[in-house]
Amino acid sequence: MRIGMLTSGGDAPGLNAVIRGAVLIGQTVHGHDFIGLRDGWRGLIEADTMPLGRNEVKGISKQGGTILGTSRTNPFEGRGGVDRVTEVMTELGIDAIIAIGGEGTLAAAKRLTDAGIRIVGVPKTVDNDLDATDYTFGFDTAVQIATEAMDRLRTTGDAHSRCMVAEVMGRHVGWIALHSGMASGAHAILIPEQRTSMEQIAAWVTSAASRGRAPLVVVAEGFTLDSMDDPHSERGLDAFGRPRLGGIGELIAPLIEERTGIETRATTLGHIQRGGTPSAFDRVLATRLGMAAVNAVTNGDWGRMVALRSTEIVTVPFAEALGTLKTVPQSRYDEAAMLFG
Amino acid sequence: MRIGMLTSGGDAPGLNAVIRGAVLIGQTVHGHDFIGLRDGWRGLIEADTMPLGRNEVKGISKQGGTILGTSRTNPFEGRGGVDRVTEVMTELGIDAIIAIGGEGTLAAAKRLTDAGIRIVGVPKTVDNDLDATDYTFGFDTAVQIATEAMDRLRTTGDAHSRCMVAEVMGRHVGWIALHSGMASGAHAILIPEQRTSMEQIAAWVTSAASRGRAPLVVVAEGFTLDSMDDPHSERGLDAFGRPRLGGIGELIAPLIEERTGIETRATTLGHIQRGGTPSAFDRVLATRLGMAAVNAVTNGDWGRMVALRSTEIVTVPFAEALGTLKTVPQSRYDEAAMLFG
Amino acid sequence: MRIGMLTSGGDAPGLNAVIRGAVLIGQTVHGHDFIGLRDGWRGLIEADTMPLGRNEVKGISKQGGTILGTSRTNPFEGRGGVDRVTEVMTELGIDAIIAIGGEGTLAAAKRLTDAGIRIVGVPKTVDNDLDATDYTFGFDTAVQIATEAMDRLRTTGDAHSRCMVAEVMGRHVGWIALHSGMASGAHAILIPEQRTSMEQIAAWVTSAASRGRAPLVVVAEGFTLDSMDDPHSERGLDAFGRPRLGGIGELIAPLIEERTGIETRATTLGHIQRGGTPSAFDRVLATRLGMAAVNAVTNGDWGRMVALRSTEIVTVPFAEALGTLKTVPQSRYDEAAMLFG
Amino acid sequence: MRIGMLTSGGDAPGLNAVIRGAVLIGQTVHGHDFIGLRDGWRGLIEADTMPLGRNEVKGISKQGGTILGTSRTNPFEGRGGVDRVTEVMTELGIDAIIAIGGEGTLAAAKRLTDAGIRIVGVPKTVDNDLDATDYTFGFDTAVQIATEAMDRLRTTGDAHSRCMVAEVMGRHVGWIALHSGMASGAHAILIPEQRTSMEQIAAWVTSAASRGRAPLVVVAEGFTLDSMDDPHSERGLDAFGRPRLGGIGELIAPLIEERTGIETRATTLGHIQRGGTPSAFDRVLATRLGMAAVNAVTNGDWGRMVALRSTEIVTVPFAEALGTLKTVPQSRYDEAAMLFG
Repeated sequence: MRIGMLTSGGDAPGLNAVIRGAVLIGQTVHGHDFIGLRDGWRGLIEADTMPLGRNEVKGISKQGGTILGTSRTNPFEGRGGVDRVTEVMTELGIDAIIAIGGEGTLAAAKRLTDAGIRIVGVPKTVDNDLDATDYTFGFDTAVQIATEAMDRLRTTGDAHSRCMVAEVMGRHVGWIALHSGMASGAHAILIPEQRTSMEQIAAWVTSAASRGRAPLVVVAEGFTLDSMDDPHSERGLDAFGRPRLGGIGELIAPLIEERTGIETRATTLGHIQRGGTPSAFDRVLATRLGMAAVNAVTNGDWGRMVALRSTEIVTVPFAEALGTLKTVPQSRYDEAAMLFG
Repeated sequence: MRIGMLTSGGDAPGLNAVIRGAVLIGQTVHGHDFIGLRDGWRGLIEADTMPLGRNEVKGISKQGGTILGTSRTNPFEGRGGVDRVTEVMTELGIDAIIAIGGEGTLAAAKRLTDAGIRIVGVPKTVDNDLDATDYTFGFDTAVQIATEAMDRLRTTGDAHSRCMVAEVMGRHVGWIALHSGMASGAHAILIPEQRTSMEQIAAWVTSAASRGRAPLVVVAEGFTLDSMDDPHSERGLDAFGRPRLGGIGELIAPLIEERTGIETRATTLGHIQRGGTPSAFDRVLATRLGMAAVNAVTNGDWGRMVALRSTEIVTVPFAEALGTLKTVPQSRYDEAAMLFG
Repeated sequence: MRIGMLTSGGDAPGLNAVIRGAVLIGQTVHGHDFIGLRDGWRGLIEADTMPLGRNEVKGISKQGGTILGTSRTNPFEGRGGVDRVTEVMTELGIDAIIAIGGEGTLAAAKRLTDAGIRIVGVPKTVDNDLDATDYTFGFDTAVQIATEAMDRLRTTGDAHSRCMVAEVMGRHVGWIALHSGMASGAHAILIPEQRTSMEQIAAWVTSAASRGRAPLVVVAEGFTLDSMDDPHSERGLDAFGRPRLGGIGELIAPLIEERTGIETRATTLGHIQRGGTPSAFDRVLATRLGMAAVNAVTNGDWGRMVALRSTEIVTVPFAEALGTLKTVPQSRYDEAAMLFG
Repeated sequence: MRIGMLTSGGDAPGLNAVIRGAVLIGQTVHGHDFIGLRDGWRGLIEADTMPLGRNEVKGISKQGGTILGTSRTNPFEGRGGVDRVTEVMTELGIDAIIAIGGEGTLAAAKRLTDAGIRIVGVPKTVDNDLDATDYTFGFDTAVQIATEAMDRLRTTGDAHSRCMVAEVMGRHVGWIALHSGMASGAHAILIPEQRTSMEQIAAWVTSAASRGRAPLVVVAEGFTLDSMDDPHSERGLDAFGRPRLGGIGELIAPLIEERTGIETRATTLGHIQRGGTPSAFDRVLATRLGMAAVNAVTNGDWGRMVALRSTEIVTVPFAEALGTLKTVPQSRYDEAAMLFG
């Protein structure tokens, strides 16, 4: 079989390990042939390809990014669509596609599969917000990077008796904040799933400071304040009446300082959380997912994605992974919050 | 309640995070009082204690080792035994014990629990060889350290066109070798659970070299060669007729060189795998286990240990965790071995 | 002799190693006695002290921050001044002071020394902008952290074919940008010492992109654009007519995107550059400086600071270190710039 | 000019950064043309080459090892010699050679230069034992890796109240031991330059233990015990009458345990010290050396090597770098030893 492979959406540490795992096992064990589709669905729609054999995947499992490139192109937009996909697959002799991507990618894959295209999916989201898999690769690396950064922030906070605010990734869910905050001993973790008032935040910060600790507040980028705590929020404007530019970390730092009297500094970790060498955990997970994806292709398990359940790799229908974000459940938040006080 | 806490057996990254998680939540949420027992069961038998409150656990979750100290003392040896344990607990006003340790510790804990002592266990083994829990803390850190070391070994192997042999921990099981070998793209992984002939090892090494790769062989310390491959093994002697001193890595390196003609070097990672700052994964896992252990104490779940199942912390009877080592199953080995060729 | 020790100004990785080196050698070799002054000059003026003996400095050389705390208090402001310093020293029985700090600290130390107070200085600046020493401790760690962050940014830039802008520390000088940019293979390094037009920056970015590279631009926080490139700069206002909040990285990223048509993202590394475990280089340097400071005290070398010259530790008069910032010389910038094209 | 480039002897982190720095600046600034000679002098003698242009050096400065390969071939052995070198250079159109290597390499380069071959050298030794340069690249990375390993060893030593012995590189000189031992707070540093009796070692270990510290002993691989401390040394045999196999760390660990009664464990860091991603310090140093080597070629500075003096890159005649090893001077050892007690 000739398999086209693509990576779509934001990059995540482990993409290359998926690709390598799939190609190695696909070639040597199953005798498949691979072709790389450049920059996600764009490469498919535009028939923009690259060779993808044993030589191309040499030593890449420890590299961040993706050798295939990625983009946010939707395969149904522009000149795309089922007919175009079918046409390109025929033209390139592609029998099946392995699509590595997040919810948008998998939704598109589902739509294409429903129309008869043969696709197997590999879930990818640094935020860990996909249902039907215990973890997605990239998440562990992001948590590790964020935790190391917070270890650093704490020592400078201690030296200056400052409150440090660290903004981490997580537009819709707070998994990275939850784990990195727990790992680094944060005194408050603010996530999109939980409404938290400035009064409560200030109470946690004051409590930590009163015990001689330099308070550490971890906030997911998607956390929002109630409008009563954020006088400008209704209008989407900041204190100067302009559209908000900075992140939530930079917004709440001065509010914390104002309420607690404790000097407060914000740091936005940003893109460093999603790049670079993946953790060993993510390399193993990604490699296994890549291998399992090829097995699914070999078995003709179209319309399914591979997933981690406990320590096993399984496959689940696209539908199961879509629709609902995997948010931080109340019990996990409560567990973490017991350590704030 | 007054809870005595002890860490026993070899150290593992995350011990301090367990202790901190337990003490923080025990004090602030449940109103318990803690007392540290020094150096494992020895501290209990000899009533050798240290204060263990909020102040003692400040900032320790990122420190390797254990602030309580550890030893391999068996509570039934010497002046120990059920009567002595009861006596010391009464004397110190200890209502219950949280014992953090590996199979030996948990077996002793079971025996004491069977005699009516109130104990909750927290499983600890860097080797990840305990049944009834998906992972033990310390394992992820060990795999990460080993993987980083192998990333380094590979570049020096490449520069010199050498075969590098890396010996990792794993006396009875090959989990660390399996995961670190998979993460680092090893061309052979040798584990105690699998008989592998020198002929097969040499074939993998030769195959990697023939593709222009510097071969990497990962071997668990507990791997053994068949006697036909190891002329001295029957007598437990080495080529000079002396008791074997070096590890298996140093044993097979010259055998590989002899069979393949490829210059081969061995490195034994040793103690660096079990010390130092735990990974974020292990800090989160260990913190949650410590918190759950206190919950189990509060609920009177004597004779049980806390465990990870998928993403949840559960409790299981000691008996369930004992008796059988969690070895690498054939399917997981076969999965990894597909990447050697 | 009884020696008071203080750390003043922003924290830097290595402060604790200086303290430990001084205390260990001061106590065991010279028989001195130490007293910690809390939060820089504030602790001296307010006689706010902490014990500082062998026990307090155990294992601290690998910890970031400073166990003495720090602040930006000026010893001549408020109730401070020569008389107050003399009074407190007499009261506490302090014979001499070791002051660890940057240019402001050393300037105050000089003024106090000129008035007869016995002070030896240890230079501290993460930015490496102090004359009379080859390097200051903390700089190597900051460069290493920034370089590792850029290694991560590059892989995500490559995956998305984006230009990545990384803002590093360096308010007045570009040393961190120069070294981390050179180490990470940056395609442009923008430093306060060098005027660089948006046209030039865009040319470098375009050139890198044309060779298939994801452009990396490293910019020191103190870099400024010519007003012709930055329509709002004259008024200190941004495009919305408000006082500028974001850093230079966030300012130039959209300007690069506009001029080159290449999607561009900015990351501000911020406080993570100055916290956490110091590099081995900085630990050795800081330990040696701390030891040398005690030797200087023992020799009565008042009014001098310790400094690194090649591989040796020497002492130089305060005056020599003050007055002129150590900026990046033209030759070093030209050397680095040869690699941009 | 067409420049042949080779890397010879043991690999060191930074080799690729030298190559990249030279090629980038050589091509774009000076218009030179490069050709890679494989596996050191072997590639020259056997005219075994690889293309070496801008494309080949993309992104390699952060990779360990050397893309050119390396070996310990001597250019005067076998079919080698001045005539053969001249013949190959003519055949390949090579005008000059940049040879990157240690003392052996530079000695051979000197001999060839004396015979009229145009060579510029770049010093390389992880051990830092070359005179005429403040530091060699690779040394900083090795010290950093060793220091991180010791940070890990200390926590496991503390947990078990054990003495940990760490054997680091340094066959003839103790620089890595000195720096990593100082950085990690070792209680004893044993180097080839200093005779140290078992009695003294045991005294240091006992002293550390008596202060509640888990003793850390750092030993360079080239350290030797006096024969009176090592009953078998005269015959080069171990306690079983066999040729010694293990390193000095494994030799002294049981001797320490015997003398002090403190459980002692040895770890040999081995090859991980010389592989993998170079530190930022080494990348900057190596890049600058590579660029300077090309400048030296351009200027016709044959028979010279580039070197670091303070913060500047200079060139020195081969002769100056050869002949005497740069050993640890007594003053530097005494400085470090003050911290043992």
